[in-house]
Amino acid sequence: MNGLMQQHPLLISNLLVHAERHHSEQQIVSRRVEGDIHRYTYKDLAARSRKLAKALAALGVKPGQTVGTLAWNGYRHMELYYGVSGSGAVLHTLNPRLHPDQVVYIADHAEDQALFFDLTFLPLVEAVASRVKTIKHFVLMTDRAHMPAQTKVPGLLCYEDLLDAQDDRYDWPQFDENSASSLCYTSGTTGNPKGVLYSHRSTILHAYAGALPDSLGSSARDVILPVVPMFHVNAWGLPYGAALVGAKLVYPGAGMDGKSLYELFEGEGVTMSAGVPTVWQGLLAYTEANNLKFSTMKRTVIGGSACPPAMIDIFEEKYNVRVLHAWGMTETSPLGAVCTLKPRQLGLSPAEQRAVQAKQGRAVFGLDMKIVDSDGAELPFGGKASGELLVKGPWVVSQYFKGEGGDPLVDGWFPTGDVSLIDADGFMQITDRAKDVIKSGGEWIGSIDLENIAMAHPAVAMAACIAAHHPKWDERPLLVVVKKPGAEVTRDELLQFFDGKIAKWWTPDDVVFVDAIPLGATGKMQKNKLRDMFKDYKLPTA
Amino acid sequence: MNGLMQQHPLLISNLLVHAERHHSEQQIVSRRVEGDIHRYTYKDLAARSRKLAKALAALGVKPGQTVGTLAWNGYRHMELYYGVSGSGAVLHTLNPRLHPDQVVYIADHAEDQALFFDLTFLPLVEAVASRVKTIKHFVLMTDRAHMPAQTKVPGLLCYEDLLDAQDDRYDWPQFDENSASSLCYTSGTTGNPKGVLYSHRSTILHAYAGALPDSLGSSARDVILPVVPMFHVNAWGLPYGAALVGAKLVYPGAGMDGKSLYELFEGEGVTMSAGVPTVWQGLLAYTEANNLKFSTMKRTVIGGSACPPAMIDIFEEKYNVRVLHAWGMTETSPLGAVCTLKPRQLGLSPAEQRAVQAKQGRAVFGLDMKIVDSDGAELPFGGKASGELLVKGPWVVSQYFKGEGGDPLVDGWFPTGDVSLIDADGFMQITDRAKDVIKSGGEWIGSIDLENIAMAHPAVAMAACIAAHHPKWDERPLLVVVKKPGAEVTRDELLQFFDGKIAKWWTPDDVVFVDAIPLGATGKMQKNKLRDMFKDYKLPTA
Repeated sequence: MNGLMQQHPLLISNLLVHAERHHSEQQIVSRRVEGDIHRYTYKDLAARSRKLAKALAALGVKPGQTVGTLAWNGYRHMELYYGVSGSGAVLHTLNPRLHPDQVVYIADHAEDQALFFDLTFLPLVEAVASRVKTIKHFVLMTDRAHMPAQTKVPGLLCYEDLLDAQDDRYDWPQFDENSASSLCYTSGTTGNPKGVLYSHRSTILHAYAGALPDSLGSSARDVILPVVPMFHVNAWGLPYGAALVGAKLVYPGAGMDGKSLYELFEGEGVTMSAGVPTVWQGLLAYTEANNLKFSTMKRTVIGGSACPPAMIDIFEEKYNVRVLHAWGMTETSPLGAVCTLKPRQLGLSPAEQRAVQAKQGRAVFGLDMKIVDSDGAELPFGGKASGELLVKGPWVVSQYFKGEGGDPLVDGWFPTGDVSLIDADGFMQITDRAKDVIKSGGEWIGSIDLENIAMAHPAVAMAACIAAHHPKWDERPLLVVVKKPGAEVTRDELLQFFDGKIAKWWTPDDVVFVDAIPLGATGKMQKNKLRDMFKDYKLPTA
Repeated sequence: MNGLMQQHPLLISNLLVHAERHHSEQQIVSRRVEGDIHRYTYKDLAARSRKLAKALAALGVKPGQTVGTLAWNGYRHMELYYGVSGSGAVLHTLNPRLHPDQVVYIADHAEDQALFFDLTFLPLVEAVASRVKTIKHFVLMTDRAHMPAQTKVPGLLCYEDLLDAQDDRYDWPQFDENSASSLCYTSGTTGNPKGVLYSHRSTILHAYAGALPDSLGSSARDVILPVVPMFHVNAWGLPYGAALVGAKLVYPGAGMDGKSLYELFEGEGVTMSAGVPTVWQGLLAYTEANNLKFSTMKRTVIGGSACPPAMIDIFEEKYNVRVLHAWGMTETSPLGAVCTLKPRQLGLSPAEQRAVQAKQGRAVFGLDMKIVDSDGAELPFGGKASGELLVKGPWVVSQYFKGEGGDPLVDGWFPTGDVSLIDADGFMQITDRAKDVIKSGGEWIGSIDLENIAMAHPAVAMAACIAAHHPKWDERPLLVVVKKPGAEVTRDELLQFFDGKIAKWWTPDDVVFVDAIPLGATGKMQKNKLRDMFKDYKLPTA
């Protein structure tokens, strides 16, 4: 027997309709590639997204077809989020930091019909335009005045011209909520990138879960600045979640340096932000150097890779900004866990609370997680053994686009490739990527713990810990360090810094200092490249 | 093209699985009908709900069949919420305040297969047991020691015996999320009550929306005491929403008086509560008389009928408890609107903020609302004209159980029978029930405004304003008043009290003092009965 409640598909266009009706005057502020600050409202966003949907139809884009973007965080990109998906087409956000060969591979694999891009990426598009196979329309996301006088891109269209040619009378189509809405490729370190194809249903459920008080806690009183790019896992869902609650949005465009971000934080009264640790390093370097404070920011979500405890301390203690440590991946939309404290922990000392906050957090309702041993048997919460983390839920991938890589699931659970502990309260802590674990004499050493300790040293700007070959133990930890500008520290001082912080046998066998650690397109350290660099490194203990 | 995300039905049992896995030690505290305080955890709830599901199967209850309850707010009732719905059967919560004839009608109409009830309601069940047609099993929700020595209820079963006969090894069945989960009859003032049949999908979506920061804002750090009964619209969804976020729950059982409630609020550290205005009157009368404060309560949700502004003032100013004025109905699961302020309003004076809080609030994402004129044409937000309120969304009824009353929808929208204004910010304010509007000379007078003014008078305990016949104006307002114990006020003093607060012609033509105003089974004033009582009343102005 079915219930007798109304049947409404969970569609992304519903978010826009809601925001237009109930938060019409709420602002969306963008730092444009053109240099100025643009400001409009959800009402404007809704009208222009409808125009865009009509423009897409005029270009011949059909429901189910993919539309690519190469763009920063900004209002035009948000119009694409709603206009493309709302019309039934699929928004494919490409990562502009990828190598042109990968851009070509991904655009072809996704069969993109059109490509919308910011002025910044005109050179990249010029480099790939003649190579991509399916793109029929190249659209520069700017107005007529900023169009290039000449370009190698064939038939280049102007975004504002396309919109100007349409009126805003358009009813969002209603269709199955399981329809594909957007597509994002993982930044696979081995093999070709694989596509994760989100649905309207997964996006809306993820948006509900992400706004909960124990997730990001978003409300109409928030001013949200997503530093995390819209070309990477839908900016962690914030362009959807903000519309769901009617929050003000502030988009930084290409201005990702500390100074540009800080000006927006203060100028627009930002209360909440989200990004990867490396971005916050840049922002904190700027505020530290200029002795600045945050006057409106209440909390920041830090994920993408483990947040060093030292960074949590600085945000919380010096800036009075609550850190929401979070975990997720492209395959999980991305929200998997958020570290908001339970009541028992509110009674702990600040230092003890920080120790909890260093964990990636607990499962949000909708997503479940477990850790398993090498035989796939579930390990108990609160146990001492770490295991591979598996997740399941309606915003977790079931298979990759076009079936690439086969069936990734194990008994319905998605294996994350992360090695984790889950404590008795359900707080999960990533101890390593499965492939980054250091296997020393049959025992596992988690590289992230070692990196966090090294990062807490005042002279260290960035640290990676990788496995180096050892004739007796098979693998031993090697610490690779980038020093802060002007700071000095010796190998022995660094190794002593580990004393008392971990089991003695976890201490790295050696330290090497480098100018830079290679970062991937989403800002994560590329340890596979480091392992390559140091594959013949001879440890002094060997 | 469909997205490639995992398919998991939205099921009520998922909430329990989540709470058991991720909030296993969180407490559920109940004041039992037996008199003592019972205390256990989500882990215990989950295990006993699984036992109950097996016990239901042993009794022959099949998926899709209905199971009735006559019970207060308590842990055993919560086990029925999860055990019945989780197993695929339908939880039918009966309102024990209904007349036995109505209980019989509803139980027969719903075709209840079993009836679970608290000790309190043994006399009621004895009165109806021989009359109901479909109930095969009567289960008293108590242990062996509290079973009556003899009873007229045939084959009376003991709840704890049923559970003791089962182990807790049970996998919750997976089925279509549109399956019926629970059934609640409206307290129809005319005609027979009509059933609203909720689904698993509607319940889960409602639980997500209800926990959002701009709704109830529930988190794992909350201690929630639902005063609103579990036999009425699922206690506004709190037994689901608390499990979703892992909040501590405190159930008051039959102890709904001010003293019993206050003891639980303070003894258990309650941070949030929810109930109708009449319950808060009792609680506030107790705290006022005993000069008490709330030491942990942060906010309270007030709905069911319009909250008098005077009550909002007392909670906010004297007790520092935030009032979340809310609106909903059985047909909306019930959450329709919650009054949380927008950022612009945070800058208003306290008095101006109170004026906003007197409105029922704005739409939560998922539910949309509009007001229409007498021709059904949508009226703009921010206009001066009130109109009938219509709503739609995935937790709004599409039709009543067994099609009673025909198709209630108008172009997909559910007409609420409430007359409302919606301001430019999207805040909706009920001005009246459509049937309670006073039609004076072709113009409408909203009775709720008049009642709110009267309720602000210090001598008034309760006030209802109804239409009385007038030879010239057709209808004119008659104010019916219950005085506070020991307080005195005259007709003329009360009428003068309206001066300057409303348009002169809205002032009631007369006042009558009564000992009590009849309340319905859900605590609402029964104005139809008042209109009956005063149908021949001769106004002094007539």
